[in-house]
Amino acid sequence: MRRYSIASIPGDGIGREVVPAAIEVLTAAAAKCGFVLEFRHFDWSCQTYLKTGKMMPDDGLDRLRDHDAVFLGAVGFPGVPDHISLWGLLLPIRREFEQYVNLRPVRLLPGIASPLRDKAPGDIDFWVVRENSEGEYSQIGGRTGTGENEIVVQQAIFTRRGTDRILRYAFDFARRSGRRHVTSATKSNGLYHSMPFWDERFAAIGAEYPDVAADQYHVDILAARFVMSPERFNVVVGSNLFGDILSDLGPGITGTIAVAPSANLNPERRFPSMFEPVHGSAPDIAGQGIANPIGQIWSGAMMLEHLGETEPAALVMRALETALIAPDIARTPDLGGNGTTAGFAQAVRNTLLGL
Amino acid sequence: MRRYSIASIPGDGIGREVVPAAIEVLTAAAAKCGFVLEFRHFDWSCQTYLKTGKMMPDDGLDRLRDHDAVFLGAVGFPGVPDHISLWGLLLPIRREFEQYVNLRPVRLLPGIASPLRDKAPGDIDFWVVRENSEGEYSQIGGRTGTGENEIVVQQAIFTRRGTDRILRYAFDFARRSGRRHVTSATKSNGLYHSMPFWDERFAAIGAEYPDVAADQYHVDILAARFVMSPERFNVVVGSNLFGDILSDLGPGITGTIAVAPSANLNPERRFPSMFEPVHGSAPDIAGQGIANPIGQIWSGAMMLEHLGETEPAALVMRALETALIAPDIARTPDLGGNGTTAGFAQAVRNTLLGL
Ligand SMILES: CC(C)[C@H](C(=O)O)[C@@H](O)C(=O)O
Ligand SMILES: CC(C)[C@H](C(=O)O)[C@@H](O)C(=O)O
Repeated sequence: MRRYSIASIPGDGIGREVVPAAIEVLTAAAAKCGFVLEFRHFDWSCQTYLKTGKMMPDDGLDRLRDHDAVFLGAVGFPGVPDHISLWGLLLPIRREFEQYVNLRPVRLLPGIASPLRDKAPGDIDFWVVRENSEGEYSQIGGRTGTGENEIVVQQAIFTRRGTDRILRYAFDFARRSGRRHVTSATKSNGLYHSMPFWDERFAAIGAEYPDVAADQYHVDILAARFVMSPERFNVVVGSNLFGDILSDLGPGITGTIAVAPSANLNPERRFPSMFEPVHGSAPDIAGQGIANPIGQIWSGAMMLEHLGETEPAALVMRALETALIAPDIARTPDLGGNGTTAGFAQAVRNTLLGL
Repeated sequence: MRRYSIASIPGDGIGREVVPAAIEVLTAAAAKCGFVLEFRHFDWSCQTYLKTGKMMPDDGLDRLRDHDAVFLGAVGFPGVPDHISLWGLLLPIRREFEQYVNLRPVRLLPGIASPLRDKAPGDIDFWVVRENSEGEYSQIGGRTGTGENEIVVQQAIFTRRGTDRILRYAFDFARRSGRRHVTSATKSNGLYHSMPFWDERFAAIGAEYPDVAADQYHVDILAARFVMSPERFNVVVGSNLFGDILSDLGPGITGTIAVAPSANLNPERRFPSMFEPVHGSAPDIAGQGIANPIGQIWSGAMMLEHLGETEPAALVMRALETALIAPDIARTPDLGGNGTTAGFAQAVRNTLLGL
């Protein structure tokens, strides 16, 4: 029997609710398809930080290292500054494990209304490929001067190696998925050094893929075009920060960010990859059992896909989409229903078992 | 008779078409209201660069300095790298003249359809207050290493003085306009130094305005919320880069960015302020006479307002809005019509004269 060991980190807030819910669905899929998912749970969170001064133990990364994948809920909670919690848990995992690709689908699901006029499933269906390990997210910099004279420096670092590998991933992905069009997010008119370099590398790598169309937009107008003409995109590649913004905006145009998944990939499989929803810990609704588990379940499907379990991954997605358009399903409040996290996940699970 | 001297810089592409069109409307408003706008034209552009190696002459800024305002079209054209053209003209004007506020309305106009479902004029009506002189836009940084080992550093610089003054402007503006709610765009979970500082100053300045509500969102989710619930915003304040992205996305949700204006303000009036549409030089349609002049005309109305000509500014906006819903008006192609730049401007002018 195929076995996979998965490190699960529910984290903070609604992460603690949606992770168990999604695990139920994934476990059912594994049982049905004849493989085993062994989850080991790591209770690392802002609570841990408040008790120990650390988001995870010193050997945290080592404890994760031997798993086939990491299944993460959400990190961050009021009481711990965001830059402390994120740089103490999420971002080190992405970096240490060279998860340099953050892959995020922007897809309108059946049964979910887009806030855009006249869009149906199929109209919005593209991918954001985000650089996930360097760039604007950096701890280099600091403050100098006091009072009125204070100055803060924040450094962004783009390496040729880091830039080339994400661009190449985007072009490979476009080729592999048969959607032969890559759009680059730039801002070379304002960011004097980093983005002209990014454009240069985009042109150079693009030239290696004559069969894939390439174009680029400054990120400001690109954001506007996500709203005005989402149909035109296939694969959008961006830096860490631009990819972050665009991959929240993307889910914004498809109805709700509670639904969107993401994969933090180490394509070479030297290290475990990590799967997490795009949404955060949502302190405002945490503890009520009403969080939407779709983003976490969909992230789980991406994890199965990455593990090579392509059929089971497709099964989970089919169950999700079938459940979403079932007339009697109890959707969570963010989708206009009055269902619960557990209830919805249960419905997906039952649908899956019946497929 | 009140006289104002205005430096006009049509710049590149459609800037050369929409600036003259807007000047016709503004001149008519001045004549009707009994004051004079004296335009002096500066033919600085990417053409200038290709001929002289400079976007503007060495004493360019001095030549602008004594005007009451600068009226700019668009800068940037294929053939000159964007970071050359922008850092050679637009950005130095913003910086030298301490135009540290970039003020941009996000307002759905009558007669223009929003790409968002079920939105009518009034539903989307807020302001983006963008820091316009420092932050992420910086020439500090560079490249080191060669080939595979190349590394590019891009430094962002936030000063306390620069941060405080834009935040204070946002709160003052919120108070003055009676829209007592300021939202800050942050990303303190990823950008380790700059954004925690920004948040700190936002809290400190906000405390000086107990009568103005304040909240903040990470820029990724904020972008999504512009699409999901634009009604909730009054005044949104952001850094140079975040303000740039949000103030293109804002016009994106109100129908077309061809319509959006902006004011680059030196609030202390030590230097001339500059008024320009949000759109760029649009090389794809340049030279055809079909560019939409609304963004340029609306920018002109903001200029009149800044010059203290409040009534004429309102008159221009009324003429624009009246023309937009007139059944027989020849709209430009971006608004689904087959009219021309000159024809549409003429219609606004005639409407204005008849008001
Ligand atoms: C042309 C470019 C440098 C400029 C900016 O980013 O400031 C433009 O996008 C704007 O918003 O005025
Ligand atoms: C929580 C935060 C640091 C993170 C990011 O910006 O990468 C999140 O927004 C995401 O997109 O995964």
